[in-house]
Amino acid sequence: MPALQNRQITMATRPEGEPRPENFRLVNGEAPQPGPGQVLVKTQYLSLDPYMRGRMSTARSYSKPLEPGDVIVGQTVSKVVASNDQAFKAGDTVLAYAGWQDYAVAAPATLRKLDPKAGPISTGLGVLGMPGMTAYTGLLNIGQPKPGETVVVAAATGPVGSAVGQIAKLKGCRAVGIAGGADKCRALTQDFGFDVAVDHRDKEMAKKLADACPKGIDVYFENVGGAVFEAVVPLLNDFARVPVCGLIAHYNDTAPPPGPNLLPLFMRATLTRRILTRGFIVSDFGAQLPEFLRDMSQWVRDGKVKYREDIVEGLEKAPEAFIGLLKGKNFGKLLVKVASD
Amino acid sequence: MPALQNRQITMATRPEGEPRPENFRLVNGEAPQPGPGQVLVKTQYLSLDPYMRGRMSTARSYSKPLEPGDVIVGQTVSKVVASNDQAFKAGDTVLAYAGWQDYAVAAPATLRKLDPKAGPISTGLGVLGMPGMTAYTGLLNIGQPKPGETVVVAAATGPVGSAVGQIAKLKGCRAVGIAGGADKCRALTQDFGFDVAVDHRDKEMAKKLADACPKGIDVYFENVGGAVFEAVVPLLNDFARVPVCGLIAHYNDTAPPPGPNLLPLFMRATLTRRILTRGFIVSDFGAQLPEFLRDMSQWVRDGKVKYREDIVEGLEKAPEAFIGLLKGKNFGKLLVKVASD
Repeated sequence: MPALQNRQITMATRPEGEPRPENFRLVNGEAPQPGPGQVLVKTQYLSLDPYMRGRMSTARSYSKPLEPGDVIVGQTVSKVVASNDQAFKAGDTVLAYAGWQDYAVAAPATLRKLDPKAGPISTGLGVLGMPGMTAYTGLLNIGQPKPGETVVVAAATGPVGSAVGQIAKLKGCRAVGIAGGADKCRALTQDFGFDVAVDHRDKEMAKKLADACPKGIDVYFENVGGAVFEAVVPLLNDFARVPVCGLIAHYNDTAPPPGPNLLPLFMRATLTRRILTRGFIVSDFGAQLPEFLRDMSQWVRDGKVKYREDIVEGLEKAPEAFIGLLKGKNFGKLLVKVASD
Repeated sequence: MPALQNRQITMATRPEGEPRPENFRLVNGEAPQPGPGQVLVKTQYLSLDPYMRGRMSTARSYSKPLEPGDVIVGQTVSKVVASNDQAFKAGDTVLAYAGWQDYAVAAPATLRKLDPKAGPISTGLGVLGMPGMTAYTGLLNIGQPKPGETVVVAAATGPVGSAVGQIAKLKGCRAVGIAGGADKCRALTQDFGFDVAVDHRDKEMAKKLADACPKGIDVYFENVGGAVFEAVVPLLNDFARVPVCGLIAHYNDTAPPPGPNLLPLFMRATLTRRILTRGFIVSDFGAQLPEFLRDMSQWVRDGKVKYREDIVEGLEKAPEAFIGLLKGKNFGKLLVKVASD
């Protein structure tokens, strides 16, 4: 087989604060050859997710940081080009961790086959993938929503937030979504079925949130941090639960924000209202993949859970799209369409 | 029966910041008469506990605040003087919520009989009472210590902290105690069996704590807050648990401390290390009273859990002793001996 041209996007330099275009580099090279037992895959869709900002940082985390020159990590929907493993054959559509590039070799254990007839393959990166499962496992295991309770989530038109709100509704809760701008807020109530939408750009956001939660907040699904969290804390009810899966407002922080120091206030709320806060990543609940796929696929088929995608065309657009993601410019699950063959 | 003289200590004025003697008032009056079904009790020991500072504040909490003129609340070991309930008779020793006064009338449901032959009755306010049960239920239900893990607690010579450390040892953990001054630190390792003691007055406290926890911290039992908590957070391991039962360093705060704002840092640690933080009060686990009494009584009898009391003589000394408690001046469970007849 003649060498395939492989474009890769690497971390050229480590970002300080907000990533900038020059932190990324497009490198042209040749695709690798699959070794014994390996599979060569070609990227169809690349998922862009906030956690990637963490990988670019040396701050302590659950994964090793990227080093300058490394291809940026990311989950993909890929097509098998060549396989030295009997479980996969050329033409199969798979979920892979191919990263920001056209081609990658993968160990079979890191791949999961997708059935293109079951629905759009891109959903394997969104509502039926990691973001959907983050919403499902975090909300149900940690949030434990009960009928009549109030569930609040920010970045609510995103793939995690929109699933959180819709699952909360399926569980009989009042769902309050926070998003940036009138269009997103309209989508929350009209498309995703949230009870109320609150615009975080509104100067009176904290008051609007309080108005939207007349019985307080029982579950706050934390994926943003910052001013939204500060507005949430006073509203948390006794025995509230706070699953924490992301802090997008802080990923570009280069130092702790200025005072006052709100940590003692939060701990005091934790104590007096017996609040539970727990961080998680989706792999902590990896064993629940079958239930998640069963429930969420059914909900999507039945139209009970809707999803929205924001698809950018071309691998070379990934850095710009990712920079925008950290500013909330996407509207729905952000994907890069890299190839369709 | 001739009227009995009753001394009461009331909250004269609401403290701002540290309570001062003038916030308290000693009032002389007559003891109330027990009505139908009520019991008149005479205070033997009054328990002084940090949570009382919260009751003097209007900040939102799990209880209504005291109003100026109210007798200050508190648990007591009392003797029944007169009873209009068949379950109690004069001379019985009971646990009561009589507050800072000589006499109180009580509903029978608020009393629990103590057996003076089973051991010193004062332990009903300490190791075998609310502080001991706070340690037991918070550590076992939320902390869930596993053999080989590291458990850290501050205010460690106090009745909660000393029980936390000793139960942690019984569960096969490394116990690290934080206390103020050389005498307390010596007591931690020599009397209470902690593996290491760290002096929070040491300018290098954070470094000493890190040295004391070479494998990080798996359970931090939070009862102080402040600089200790800030030193703990960087040491928390993946999947660490933080039961929160008190924040004595902040009870006198009149405003949030100055910056930087450490809340985002804490939330980032929560996320990346999947930390669980949960506030509780002992009554949340009230149903576990029988197991607690069974286990802790046995451990005390067997000498596996030791306790230390700091007894002040005379009800009139309660304000000064309480002010000292908030500064860490007590050494062991702080009690006021009010009467012995």
